[in-house]
Amino acid sequence: MYNTKIDETKIDRLANLAVNTGLSLKPGQDLLITSPVEALPLVRRIVVHAYRAGANLVTPLFSDPEITLARYENAPDTSFDKAASWLYNGMGEAFDNNTARLAIVGDDPMLLEHQDPGKIGRSNKALSNASKPARERITTFTINWNIVAWPGKAWACRVFPELSAEEAQKSLAEAIFAASRVNNANPHEMWKKHNENLKQKSSWLNSMDFDFLHYKGPGTDLKVGLAKNHEWMGGASKSQNGITCNPNIPSEEVFTTPHCLKVDGHVSSTKPLSHQGSLIEGIRVEFKEGKIINAKADKGEKVFNKVLDSDEGARRLGEVALVPDSSPISQSNILFYNTLFDENAACHIALGQCYSKCFKNFESLTNDDIKSFGGNSSMIHIDWMIGSKDINIDGIKENNLIPVFRNGEWVN
Amino acid sequence: MYNTKIDETKIDRLANLAVNTGLSLKPGQDLLITSPVEALPLVRRIVVHAYRAGANLVTPLFSDPEITLARYENAPDTSFDKAASWLYNGMGEAFDNNTARLAIVGDDPMLLEHQDPGKIGRSNKALSNASKPARERITTFTINWNIVAWPGKAWACRVFPELSAEEAQKSLAEAIFAASRVNNANPHEMWKKHNENLKQKSSWLNSMDFDFLHYKGPGTDLKVGLAKNHEWMGGASKSQNGITCNPNIPSEEVFTTPHCLKVDGHVSSTKPLSHQGSLIEGIRVEFKEGKIINAKADKGEKVFNKVLDSDEGARRLGEVALVPDSSPISQSNILFYNTLFDENAACHIALGQCYSKCFKNFESLTNDDIKSFGGNSSMIHIDWMIGSKDINIDGIKENNLIPVFRNGEWVN
Repeated sequence: MYNTKIDETKIDRLANLAVNTGLSLKPGQDLLITSPVEALPLVRRIVVHAYRAGANLVTPLFSDPEITLARYENAPDTSFDKAASWLYNGMGEAFDNNTARLAIVGDDPMLLEHQDPGKIGRSNKALSNASKPARERITTFTINWNIVAWPGKAWACRVFPELSAEEAQKSLAEAIFAASRVNNANPHEMWKKHNENLKQKSSWLNSMDFDFLHYKGPGTDLKVGLAKNHEWMGGASKSQNGITCNPNIPSEEVFTTPHCLKVDGHVSSTKPLSHQGSLIEGIRVEFKEGKIINAKADKGEKVFNKVLDSDEGARRLGEVALVPDSSPISQSNILFYNTLFDENAACHIALGQCYSKCFKNFESLTNDDIKSFGGNSSMIHIDWMIGSKDINIDGIKENNLIPVFRNGEWVN
Repeated sequence: MYNTKIDETKIDRLANLAVNTGLSLKPGQDLLITSPVEALPLVRRIVVHAYRAGANLVTPLFSDPEITLARYENAPDTSFDKAASWLYNGMGEAFDNNTARLAIVGDDPMLLEHQDPGKIGRSNKALSNASKPARERITTFTINWNIVAWPGKAWACRVFPELSAEEAQKSLAEAIFAASRVNNANPHEMWKKHNENLKQKSSWLNSMDFDFLHYKGPGTDLKVGLAKNHEWMGGASKSQNGITCNPNIPSEEVFTTPHCLKVDGHVSSTKPLSHQGSLIEGIRVEFKEGKIINAKADKGEKVFNKVLDSDEGARRLGEVALVPDSSPISQSNILFYNTLFDENAACHIALGQCYSKCFKNFESLTNDDIKSFGGNSSMIHIDWMIGSKDINIDGIKENNLIPVFRNGEWVN
C-alpha cells in the first residue's frame, strides 16, 4: 500500500536524525507526531527510533488532504469558524507532561488554491485561536521540538511540474535528503559541524548588539529596530526543559526578535510565500512605526490581507533572520513552495508572534517583560523571504554603520 | 496509494449508512472518527457524508498496526504502564460538546500474538484507565455513536487463509457488506425493517420482566439473574442527547443488564474470543454469586486471566445478549475473529461494565442507583459467545419457567 521509490536507507537516516539530533529525545519522554498519512513510511521509522531512544509513548496524529478538501466542498458555512480545541487542549496537557513534538510537512502547498479565501481565513483564525495552548509551548520553547519534511507526491509535482509524479517524488526526496544533510552516512556529525558554523555567526551578532538592521535592495529600503536584550540564535538551541535540540531540519538561518514598534520603510518579497494552501507572490509592504500601513501582492493579495487582519500583532514583525544567498538550498535553485526550505534560501522576516527564546535570559522573562522590550504578540507567525544576491544589510550601533551582508553574503 | 479492488459503490453506501442511520448525525454536531490508516477510503467517504449531513467539524484519528508493533518491539519496559491520557481527556471534552463518535474496526485480530502477555495486559490496563473519560460517555450512552468495519488485508487473511491477500480482502468486504445490509440500494430502508424486528423481540422480553435466564447446552448450565429495572434493547436506541442511533453495524442482538451478584453455574464459550490482538479459545468458567471463581481456556488462558484480573468488576457480568443461530452472520458460517460480527452469530455474555442505558428511565439514574439494581462496574467490557444451535434458554418469573430459546432459536 505504501510502496514508494524513495531510498529507504535515507528515510531511516532522516528518521534517526529527527529523533536524535532534531528532537534530541530523552529516555522517559513521550512524543507527539503530526504528519500527513502519505508520510507513513517515515513516521514508522521515527517511531522505531523514538522507542529505541527510550520514549515511553509515541502518538502520531495523521492528516489527509482529501479530508481537508472534503470539508471545503461539503461542510456547512458554520464549520469554518470551528476548530478542534479539545485536541489542542490535550496537546498542551501532553507538552506540560514531558512530551516532545515532531511535525512532518509534505502536503501540496496549493491544496486550497480553488477554495474560498474567506473560508480559508476564518478557518485559519479559528485554528489559531484553538491551537494556542499547543502553539505557545513551541513559541516559548518550553519543550524540545523538530520539523522535518516528507516528499509528498502532490507537493513534488508542484516543485517539478515537468516530471512524472513518481520521478518528481524521487527528485524532491533527494532535494530534501541533501538539504537535511542525510546523504552522508553520519548525519549527526554533519549537523554538529553545521551547528558550530551557525553559532559563530550568532555569537558575532550578539557581540555587536546592533540597535537596527538597515536592508537595501531592489524594491527594499527597510530599517528594522532590534528588540531590547535581543539574542541571536541559530541551529541547535536549548529549550526550557533543558534539552538542546535542532527545531528545524533543514536550517541555515540565524535569527532574532525585532522591535515591533521600530520598523520603517518598504520591503518586497523575493520568493513566493506558500501559506496554508495558498500561494502569495510579489508582496510589497510599507511599515510605519512597526506597523504595516500598506500591503500589495501580485498574487494572493486577498489571502495576504486576511492574514494581516488576523489580529493586532499580525501587521508587525516577530522575527528577522539572516541567510546567505550561497546557502545550499539557495544554490540548489529549487523553489520548494514550503517555508521550511525556502526560508533557508534567503534572508527573511516574519509577521506575528516573536520567539521569546530570542532574548537574553529568556527563561526568567514574563510576557510583560517581552512586551516592554519590543517583542510582538500575535496568533500568527508567518515567514516571508526578502533576501537575494542583491541585498545589502548594515548593522547600526549608536549611529555607526557596520556592514553585515554585501550582495547577499556575510561580510564576516 | 490506496487502490483496492473493493466495490466503491458499497464503500460509499456503508459510509452513508454509518453517518445517517448508524450515527444519525445531526446538523451542527462534530464527529470524531477512530480508524486504521488502511481504512482511509471508507473514512474519506464518511467525512463527505458527515459534512453533507451538516457536521461542523470531522476529526479522524488514525492508528497503524506497524506503529503498534514498533512499541512492543522497541519501547522501554516503563512504556507499557503508560497511555495517552491527554488524548482521552480531550475526547471526553469533545463528547461533552456535541461530538458524535464513529469507530472503524479492521485490524489484524492476531496482531499481538507473538508479544508478551504481561506487556499486553499492563498496556490494556493503562489504556482502560486513561480512556475512561471517553469510554464512559459511550457506556452511559451520553452521545450518539456507531461502529462499522473495514476489510483490512491482514484481518481478511486470518478469515480466509486459503485465499490470496487481494481475494481475501474482496471476500471479507463482501461479507461485511452483506452483514451490514448495504447490498440493497437503500440500506436505510433495510435497517428500518430490521430495527422493527429487533424491537418486537425486546418489547416481548420487557413485557415478561424475567427474574432469571437459565441457559442449558453442552458444557453450559448457567442461571443469570437480571438486574432490577433492567430494560431489553436492540437495534436503534435513543442516546441521552436525544438522538436515536444504531450503535453497531451489523447488529442482530437484543441485550440487557444482568444482576452482577446473581449469576451461578458454569458456561463454555462456543466461538473464539479475539481480544486486543490475542485469540482466546475454549473458555470454561464457573460463577458463584455473580463472580467467576474458576476460569480455564484451551488457548490464551494467560491473557484471559489477565483480563479477569483487570479490576474488581472484571470477573462479573455486565451484559447478556440473545441472538438466534439463524442470524445471517451465523448462517454465513464465517468466523470473523471480531466481536462486532461474531457476537451477532450467537448468544453472548460480557464481562465488566454494564450499559446504564439498559435500565428503565436510565437518564434519571445515578451510579448508586445502578449499583443497587445490580449493574456491574469495571474498566473493561468484553463480549464472548456462549450460544449455538444446541442452546436452550428459559426465562424464570416468580418460579414459572417460560421457554425463550429452543435449539438456538427464538420460541416466540
